[in-house]
Amino acid sequence: MSISADNTTHESVAASHALPEPTEEEAAQLEQLYKDFAAGNMIPLWTEIGDLMPMVPTPKAVAHVWRWNDLYPLAARAGDLVPVGRGGERRAIALANPGLSGAPYATPTLWAAIQYLGPHEVAPEHRHSQNAFRFVVEGEGVWTVVNGDPVAMRRGDFLLTPGWNFHGHHNDTDQPMAWIDGLDIPFVHYADAGFFEFGTERVTDEATPDISRSERLWAHPGLRPLSGLDDTTNSPIAAYRWEHTDAALREQLLLEDEGHPATVSQGHAAIRYSNPTTGGDVMPTIRAEFHRLRAGATTEPLREVGSSVWQVFEGTGTVVINGETKQLAKGDLFVVPSWQQWSLHADNDQPDFDLFRFSDAPIFERLNFNRSYTEGRK
Amino acid sequence: MSISADNTTHESVAASHALPEPTEEEAAQLEQLYKDFAAGNMIPLWTEIGDLMPMVPTPKAVAHVWRWNDLYPLAARAGDLVPVGRGGERRAIALANPGLSGAPYATPTLWAAIQYLGPHEVAPEHRHSQNAFRFVVEGEGVWTVVNGDPVAMRRGDFLLTPGWNFHGHHNDTDQPMAWIDGLDIPFVHYADAGFFEFGTERVTDEATPDISRSERLWAHPGLRPLSGLDDTTNSPIAAYRWEHTDAALREQLLLEDEGHPATVSQGHAAIRYSNPTTGGDVMPTIRAEFHRLRAGATTEPLREVGSSVWQVFEGTGTVVINGETKQLAKGDLFVVPSWQQWSLHADNDQPDFDLFRFSDAPIFERLNFNRSYTEGRK
Amino acid sequence: MSISADNTTHESVAASHALPEPTEEEAAQLEQLYKDFAAGNMIPLWTEIGDLMPMVPTPKAVAHVWRWNDLYPLAARAGDLVPVGRGGERRAIALANPGLSGAPYATPTLWAAIQYLGPHEVAPEHRHSQNAFRFVVEGEGVWTVVNGDPVAMRRGDFLLTPGWNFHGHHNDTDQPMAWIDGLDIPFVHYADAGFFEFGTERVTDEATPDISRSERLWAHPGLRPLSGLDDTTNSPIAAYRWEHTDAALREQLLLEDEGHPATVSQGHAAIRYSNPTTGGDVMPTIRAEFHRLRAGATTEPLREVGSSVWQVFEGTGTVVINGETKQLAKGDLFVVPSWQQWSLHADNDQPDFDLFRFSDAPIFERLNFNRSYTEGRK
Amino acid sequence: MSISADNTTHESVAASHALPEPTEEEAAQLEQLYKDFAAGNMIPLWTEIGDLMPMVPTPKAVAHVWRWNDLYPLAARAGDLVPVGRGGERRAIALANPGLSGAPYATPTLWAAIQYLGPHEVAPEHRHSQNAFRFVVEGEGVWTVVNGDPVAMRRGDFLLTPGWNFHGHHNDTDQPMAWIDGLDIPFVHYADAGFFEFGTERVTDEATPDISRSERLWAHPGLRPLSGLDDTTNSPIAAYRWEHTDAALREQLLLEDEGHPATVSQGHAAIRYSNPTTGGDVMPTIRAEFHRLRAGATTEPLREVGSSVWQVFEGTGTVVINGETKQLAKGDLFVVPSWQQWSLHADNDQPDFDLFRFSDAPIFERLNFNRSYTEGRK
Repeated sequence: MSISADNTTHESVAASHALPEPTEEEAAQLEQLYKDFAAGNMIPLWTEIGDLMPMVPTPKAVAHVWRWNDLYPLAARAGDLVPVGRGGERRAIALANPGLSGAPYATPTLWAAIQYLGPHEVAPEHRHSQNAFRFVVEGEGVWTVVNGDPVAMRRGDFLLTPGWNFHGHHNDTDQPMAWIDGLDIPFVHYADAGFFEFGTERVTDEATPDISRSERLWAHPGLRPLSGLDDTTNSPIAAYRWEHTDAALREQLLLEDEGHPATVSQGHAAIRYSNPTTGGDVMPTIRAEFHRLRAGATTEPLREVGSSVWQVFEGTGTVVINGETKQLAKGDLFVVPSWQQWSLHADNDQPDFDLFRFSDAPIFERLNFNRSYTEGRK
Repeated sequence: MSISADNTTHESVAASHALPEPTEEEAAQLEQLYKDFAAGNMIPLWTEIGDLMPMVPTPKAVAHVWRWNDLYPLAARAGDLVPVGRGGERRAIALANPGLSGAPYATPTLWAAIQYLGPHEVAPEHRHSQNAFRFVVEGEGVWTVVNGDPVAMRRGDFLLTPGWNFHGHHNDTDQPMAWIDGLDIPFVHYADAGFFEFGTERVTDEATPDISRSERLWAHPGLRPLSGLDDTTNSPIAAYRWEHTDAALREQLLLEDEGHPATVSQGHAAIRYSNPTTGGDVMPTIRAEFHRLRAGATTEPLREVGSSVWQVFEGTGTVVINGETKQLAKGDLFVVPSWQQWSLHADNDQPDFDLFRFSDAPIFERLNFNRSYTEGRK
Repeated sequence: MSISADNTTHESVAASHALPEPTEEEAAQLEQLYKDFAAGNMIPLWTEIGDLMPMVPTPKAVAHVWRWNDLYPLAARAGDLVPVGRGGERRAIALANPGLSGAPYATPTLWAAIQYLGPHEVAPEHRHSQNAFRFVVEGEGVWTVVNGDPVAMRRGDFLLTPGWNFHGHHNDTDQPMAWIDGLDIPFVHYADAGFFEFGTERVTDEATPDISRSERLWAHPGLRPLSGLDDTTNSPIAAYRWEHTDAALREQLLLEDEGHPATVSQGHAAIRYSNPTTGGDVMPTIRAEFHRLRAGATTEPLREVGSSVWQVFEGTGTVVINGETKQLAKGDLFVVPSWQQWSLHADNDQPDFDLFRFSDAPIFERLNFNRSYTEGRK
Repeated sequence: MSISADNTTHESVAASHALPEPTEEEAAQLEQLYKDFAAGNMIPLWTEIGDLMPMVPTPKAVAHVWRWNDLYPLAARAGDLVPVGRGGERRAIALANPGLSGAPYATPTLWAAIQYLGPHEVAPEHRHSQNAFRFVVEGEGVWTVVNGDPVAMRRGDFLLTPGWNFHGHHNDTDQPMAWIDGLDIPFVHYADAGFFEFGTERVTDEATPDISRSERLWAHPGLRPLSGLDDTTNSPIAAYRWEHTDAALREQLLLEDEGHPATVSQGHAAIRYSNPTTGGDVMPTIRAEFHRLRAGATTEPLREVGSSVWQVFEGTGTVVINGETKQLAKGDLFVVPSWQQWSLHADNDQPDFDLFRFSDAPIFERLNFNRSYTEGRK
């Protein structure tokens, strides 16, 4: 679809259609009309259209980077000062987009937080409509228990807690652990769609197995248990393990080396986490992906409807968002607002530049608002 | 799904888990921590969870009625004072929900407005991502031209302008005409998903046929043109005519009289406008229905995730929303916010109580947030 | 997809790879091997592949025309001699494709029969897995009762009896009536998928309404009853009435006259009967369409995977199938086998050439075997 | 769905409705009528209905066992006597169901054959509409090259060659190898839907990698390459490896031991091979599964619409089909015709009883003819 490249706006168009000044009487009548509108809980379109219906998306959310080196120490201090338990539920600290007027939202739709659990602490069980996942950039020792299934959390793992599943976390070690939570809290709040229910104070199964029962049933490539033939909205795989993600990316780059189509573009491997019962996204509102750029590789500048949050998993590089370059290092999180042009570049002095990404893309695809635009392409 | 009926809240739960008061030093450290959070664009969950993740939806939008007898005269005054044309685009005045802080939104997702076009006026062509429809409670004489297809607007008709279709309106008569516009403007604005493009100043086809070309191709029950076998996101029918809606409702009540299942409940007939290429909703974000209650009939109290806007088409009755009763007459519009219990009742002294309804239900169904609850049912 | 145009066959290829003649000893060993295969219920591919896996479909069914002037008198004689009732169930006489070795099949998948019901006769109720429809080329006065819903049958109507619906027919007049039955009997027999159950001896509802309850609920363009929101495999519309079919075709040709896209090709209007809950075919194995050619119009020569049966409804013309021209008049039925090229031509001296068609196309689409080829197109 | 348990048949019903004997004149007229039907390529329903539309499926195909100890030696003798190459294409010997009148069909829809390739032999490339797979009960050393991707074949592997993919095989070793081919040849032949094209005489890539490129891209649990986001009718995984199948089954039985739901029934683990882009069957006409029974376990007697072919992979046991018990050992193949009741039992003196199964179930599910019946269940 062609997107207008010129600077047409409602304002510029309105200006060029300027009407003769109203007479004094007309002005008075108009003033009274607007008062009467206000009294009647009515607002005219013609005074609002420029902001309401811009030519292209003009997000209030801004591109922003949160440094892991800032986040982690603050989370650790909260670990000392703020207990975790019923009522507050989680020791999670949200990334608050500077453009969003003080709301605890990374983007209008997405919540991203660092969660911190001290040695032997327990975050009590609850469930809610909001879809959630965890991603682990470092550490291990916590088990998240999802509907009674204990799921080990380790570096590189992507872990699901889809809506309305009871879940709690407990740290089985003498070390603290921190990770990233991603949820659709802002969307659900906006849309008045959320339900919440408290569960048990301790997790319902304190076992600490290496892999979850969900993985034992479901994480075999292309194989479905005959006891699980009904398709599910959410992926039945509770944990996508790093070893599989890493292998998939490695093979893509090797296939590229061997001359076969496999990568997104030269030097850019990527996978999408998917629901094996449908092939679609893991949850109805959240897309999750993992990207690997070879040293020196650059992605094509891209605009997309919808917002995303990225975390650097390994390596260093830069992201250019709407022309502004940001340096990135391990653990750093950044936000790309809707329709802002982004491009990643991997530094040269490293093996690979690895990034985890999540976004609200399924919302736009399911509602047919998805669009994208690559510079220089038709 | 069972919804907790008790009064559990985060606050009540937190209170029952109250911790010992912090020491002065701890309090100082905590204060510093919160300052550092703010400086780092971080916000803790534990101070926000009660508002962010309530036990059930707690919409800011409120139930409200706008009277046709108020709306129409104000629109007519705007007709005298405010020209329609490029820039402002439309003489539409939005219903502004008193709970939504001055935004021109009927609900968080839905726009509802009265649009007024004077004799021989033209609203210029444009297109936008936002999905739109018109519903006509009285009058005729305007043609809306959708992608070059002139569509007559008459009492009882439901008319589509799905996203990214060029459209303009022109009044071919010596009388003004007003109607209701419904769009997903608030949702698209919230989600940063909107694109807009100006079209021609006059409508591209000034013909005034009785029915549109889209109807001639598509409005035959169960018949698809062989030239139109690709399914479309939006309904290809530009106008759903009153004569069909009326007949469908009448037959349902007759079938009920004859002892056959046909109505939603005793004395309550209803149809949903649908896309003949898929059987689904007419547009991806908006559901539209028409309801007819026999004199004296009452609908079961119902809660639903998502919001809706109703307009009385004919007859009189009441709606009870979260316990509050509101009288309704022809043309009146009212809003039901998410999860507020509603029930309609038709007055006795009339043939039928007819109401048009539109809602954001497809958003919740497509994203799996839909839930409903009928009092007294499991 | 490119289809080989040359004359390559397994035989010609095998001939060009001919091996040296076997020695006498080898020949004896080979003979013994084939005997041992036979004894072991084994058959080698290499002797069968030419017939089993031809380069393009080579149907045994042949193109054939059955004349209404032959069919009807024979059916009427059966009306005098053969009673209708329990056991034989129906006075239906199948078109037996001359290529199909005496089976009562129009094509490998499709059954087509003329059914005849004398004055006041009743065909008892039963149900079966097989999907069925009726099409009426002339006459009226019979009601088919489908799951208790009496459905009037009149010229031009297309009437459904999807699998496992109880149904019977009764003639309410002093005149006989004949019509066409179409079913997937051959497919279901081949696939060992059929179940059958006897019902009542008389129809369960002897009322003779003008339109069925299913139509009163469902045959309103683009409108679904709120009491019928679950999608159904089969169309809920029991009767597609001639007035709607005729109007849809007429409008397509008028739109063509006015310069708008509407027809399949110049002078060729067509509709597909569809399921309003899905937009898809009326039943999972059978597609039904109605085609109208203006006087003098010709359709592009087309090959398709799958077979179809046509009946002339009005007018005269010709069909060319694999190069052979057949004259057609009102009521005549003809078969187009899989992958045989067909083209219709309407005679000049008439208003329109109208044809009903049914086919097994949904089977091939649902199993991804559908292909088509238009001469001269890529 | 309730299936009639009594012995009602068309014949018994017809007998109970016997009409008075026709007079001599009537008999003569009737005889003439039948002659005229035959001359007109017409066949009455009432004389055919009992066979055409039985009360439940009455397959001609019979339950039958082919012993690996018979099959393999015959295939090896063919290896000595019959060259493999262009024209005959494959040294494959089909299982010919004794009930199917000498056709090389295991069931009406399914082809099952043993294919044998001698040391360093090559089966040339070709492609066809028919969907194919290989399953390996013993041996290794052959690579099947599917659209240029070399796929190693080893014991326990399930390998896909979906319709219209070029493929050939070559034996890279000094040992012969045999395996099972499964295709929908009978269905495609019946339905006149097959196309065939010759390819190169040698395979297009003679490399002998351990795993195929398709696996390197796709066989990672729940992970999709971003370069492969378009869903595909057929699974993109060319080889489902034994190690994954074995692990999935093992885990199901361990979970059962631990008290968690995982198996189909007590002691009966099973997986379905699936398409990771949709979660559905690997190909549109063929379902494939692997079943493992603990020693002593028995499956519930089951009837299903559609036919299947099983091969014992390991262990010994019995199958009871319509009351007849058959002993089974490694490599044995057997057929279960439509609607015949089957139950498996694993012998006691062994670790596990492992069986591969393929069936035509997707055909029936996609066309809504699927039904099943478990003795004693509603």
